[in-house]
Amino acid sequence: MKQLLPDPAQFRVNGRLWIEGPADRFLGIGRLELLQHIRTQGSISKAAQAMNMSYKRAWELVSSMNTQAREPLVSTQTGGQRGGGAHLTEAGVQAVAEFEALQQRFQEFVTQETARLRG
Amino acid sequence: MKQLLPDPAQFRVNGRLWIEGPADRFLGIGRLELLQHIRTQGSISKAAQAMNMSYKRAWELVSSMNTQAREPLVSTQTGGQRGGGAHLTEAGVQAVAEFEALQQRFQEFVTQETARLRG
Repeated sequence: MKQLLPDPAQFRVNGRLWIEGPADRFLGIGRLELLQHIRTQGSISKAAQAMNMSYKRAWELVSSMNTQAREPLVSTQTGGQRGGGAHLTEAGVQAVAEFEALQQRFQEFVTQETARLRG
Repeated sequence: MKQLLPDPAQFRVNGRLWIEGPADRFLGIGRLELLQHIRTQGSISKAAQAMNMSYKRAWELVSSMNTQAREPLVSTQTGGQRGGGAHLTEAGVQAVAEFEALQQRFQEFVTQETARLRG
């Protein structure tokens, strides 16, 4: 590709990766970030705020992940949907770790392909 | 990830890959498809029709690729933007071949990661 580009150093390979199930996306970079924020904030509404995402959207994403996984990734405490806290379950912690590792391998692929692109 | 999923065989890793320059995307799966249609149809407007894309959008994508590459990837004949034909230049043929090869390596990565996901 190098000889097709005026300044190859300014070009790079980039992309997005996700895990999808039969009905819906299961995990992607946005859902990962939401889980990471829930872990640190202890609340779906605070996590949504931190991402400039509506509470409704955050709740839908959590619900989608929880429904698709064998066990919920996020556990919510009583006190109403907005009132109670939320934390990652053991399955949620594991899902975050494994998707982070997958993202890391994808990043290595992208870095390697960018190097090849620049020849 | 396998033990987190009710039926791992129904889940898979998927993604999108593209090449981006300092100002804009340079090549992605949609642009590749457009180049492939221009090659077979010999016309930007026919290629756009085949993709259910507006002529304006197809022209913008061709213009973006031609501007960013060292040499144009698509050459248009006289007869007005809609009247004349279009064909891939040597650089265009090479860009298609190299992006197809990149997509093929990405497909191998995704297949390998899907196998790992299913454990």
